[in-house]
Amino acid sequence: MRTISIAPLALSALGLLGTIAPAAAFDAKEIGSFHIGGQALTLKGLPIKELVYTAGGPPTKMDPNGDFHSGQMYVQYIKLTNPKARYPLLLWHGGGLTGVTWETKPDGQPGWQMYFLNAGHDVYVSDAVERGRASWSRYPEVYSGEPVFRTKKEAWEAFRIGPDSSYATDPVERKVHPGQRFPIAAFDVFAMQSVPRWVTNDAKTQAAYNALVAKVCPCVIVVHSQGGNFGFNAALAAPDKVKALIAVEPSGAPPETANLAAVKDVPQLIVWGDFIAQSELWTKLSGASTAYHKALAAMGGKVDWISLPDKGIKGNGHMLMMDTNSDHVAELIQNWMTDRGLMQ
Amino acid sequence: MRTISIAPLALSALGLLGTIAPAAAFDAKEIGSFHIGGQALTLKGLPIKELVYTAGGPPTKMDPNGDFHSGQMYVQYIKLTNPKARYPLLLWHGGGLTGVTWETKPDGQPGWQMYFLNAGHDVYVSDAVERGRASWSRYPEVYSGEPVFRTKKEAWEAFRIGPDSSYATDPVERKVHPGQRFPIAAFDVFAMQSVPRWVTNDAKTQAAYNALVAKVCPCVIVVHSQGGNFGFNAALAAPDKVKALIAVEPSGAPPETANLAAVKDVPQLIVWGDFIAQSELWTKLSGASTAYHKALAAMGGKVDWISLPDKGIKGNGHMLMMDTNSDHVAELIQNWMTDRGLMQ
Repeated sequence: MRTISIAPLALSALGLLGTIAPAAAFDAKEIGSFHIGGQALTLKGLPIKELVYTAGGPPTKMDPNGDFHSGQMYVQYIKLTNPKARYPLLLWHGGGLTGVTWETKPDGQPGWQMYFLNAGHDVYVSDAVERGRASWSRYPEVYSGEPVFRTKKEAWEAFRIGPDSSYATDPVERKVHPGQRFPIAAFDVFAMQSVPRWVTNDAKTQAAYNALVAKVCPCVIVVHSQGGNFGFNAALAAPDKVKALIAVEPSGAPPETANLAAVKDVPQLIVWGDFIAQSELWTKLSGASTAYHKALAAMGGKVDWISLPDKGIKGNGHMLMMDTNSDHVAELIQNWMTDRGLMQ
Repeated sequence: MRTISIAPLALSALGLLGTIAPAAAFDAKEIGSFHIGGQALTLKGLPIKELVYTAGGPPTKMDPNGDFHSGQMYVQYIKLTNPKARYPLLLWHGGGLTGVTWETKPDGQPGWQMYFLNAGHDVYVSDAVERGRASWSRYPEVYSGEPVFRTKKEAWEAFRIGPDSSYATDPVERKVHPGQRFPIAAFDVFAMQSVPRWVTNDAKTQAAYNALVAKVCPCVIVVHSQGGNFGFNAALAAPDKVKALIAVEPSGAPPETANLAAVKDVPQLIVWGDFIAQSELWTKLSGASTAYHKALAAMGGKVDWISLPDKGIKGNGHMLMMDTNSDHVAELIQNWMTDRGLMQ
């Protein structure tokens, strides 16, 4: 085989850039962001405090009462000069994380945002309500309950990097699943991406996602983990707007009592990694999307299922967009989008 | 004057793109992000709780004790295929906000991130410790004190959109400074960018910023408001790494007792908008950078001062990167960087 070396820019300008060239350049027309969803609210009756905001600055009276916005989410977009996809691609992260999930890998390698930009998609990376740049609101006055902070142990085990009870504070004592593809040496770097979450805001989060779909779709949505339910429900709410849904390790799915016929013609792909049987949590959680897939398939729905180990791709845990073979997994998804007629 | 219309991509590829073309395309080599700073910590002795993480999922025991990372900050970068600046440009936001400050204007127009990408800079937009995608930590166990949530009234008045006591819940009742350049109709959209802050984390924030400088500099840094002190102190800590500092409406500055001689040869520009005299808060807060400028100038420092109204540019408040003439202000800064030899 002969290899011709051409500068990435030239390739891209000529429209010759392959969809599996993760480190190449992309021609951006615009980068920007916006917040969407939520509503105005007013707090009253809280005590006034006195604070110094800037070292050396004067003390300022801090009155916590007043008008706020709450329930919004954050979305950053990059639009290409010459997109090759029919629709923008929306990337929705999972629980206790933010859009950073898609931007980078903890070993510093480029993430799926870069991959799909190179593949020719306008890409929208968002932070769900209460996470990251979406901001969060006072509790218990606005949010019910208190925030949950994920420990490294929970991440290590729930993300199937190692089996249950395999985490240790000292990295050298941690046990990993055999053949693990996560960049294990960078696990403590990955832990820096964690953000607190509430378990009481699902309705607000769904409302903001639905508002996002109404604003920027028709679109294709890639969801991860907790994003699964939000994506499936967004498609049920707007099946004309969601042109395809790719659910990567969805932690939940709508029950069979949902109006699944509404999304029968929405192309859907469900992707699972390895080590499910070794995880009590994921053996349970994967049941919902298994039943969803089965019910949709039974009514002739356009739903596909990829179990990576069943295809001979071993060693991927829950954060497979960060694994050493993440480009390979992205390529499978990209090829599925091509097959489903989602590229120009 | 004759106007020649050429597609932005072609202009950019030919290296002909002017530095004042805010809506043109840019050729990106890479987009990515990372977290930096902070340290590992372990929490012990907190009570265990039981929570349902995903609707329909099984209840999970939540043990808040364990290992975490705390004190990190978040940085997103876009590197150009052919940068025209000598150094990457770091954009550091102000208090109660995130890197979104630089990404967009509340009326949906492109922000300074896009402007400076078009002008040929590799751009790094960050979220300081405890803000946005940097994440935040449990209090009072890790952070001292409680978070502060900025009201719309505080933003309206402290950001000099209207005079003191001019805010009202109903937009039609709000009073603005005459000639105000902020996109007033989008003020409630801007409020969606607010994030909670603590007033007790300055040392952690400074440490993370210093770590960022050590990692990605030599560089040029643009700071806003609360970012002022962090930027000035980062330059004092690493004057060889900070090749220039542009302080936009800095809310503080190092005292004359600091070792200002260390930054005598670091080009610095301080930029102020309008309506200072009408604001009790900013009349006080601007005193620190006024004294800093005077002291540095007296020892022959490379420090410049732009008061926009003194140059005949009226109507800019504190969030001048969002004002209707924000490109004009950015152009002044870009021209200063060119004059200081910071472009190739």
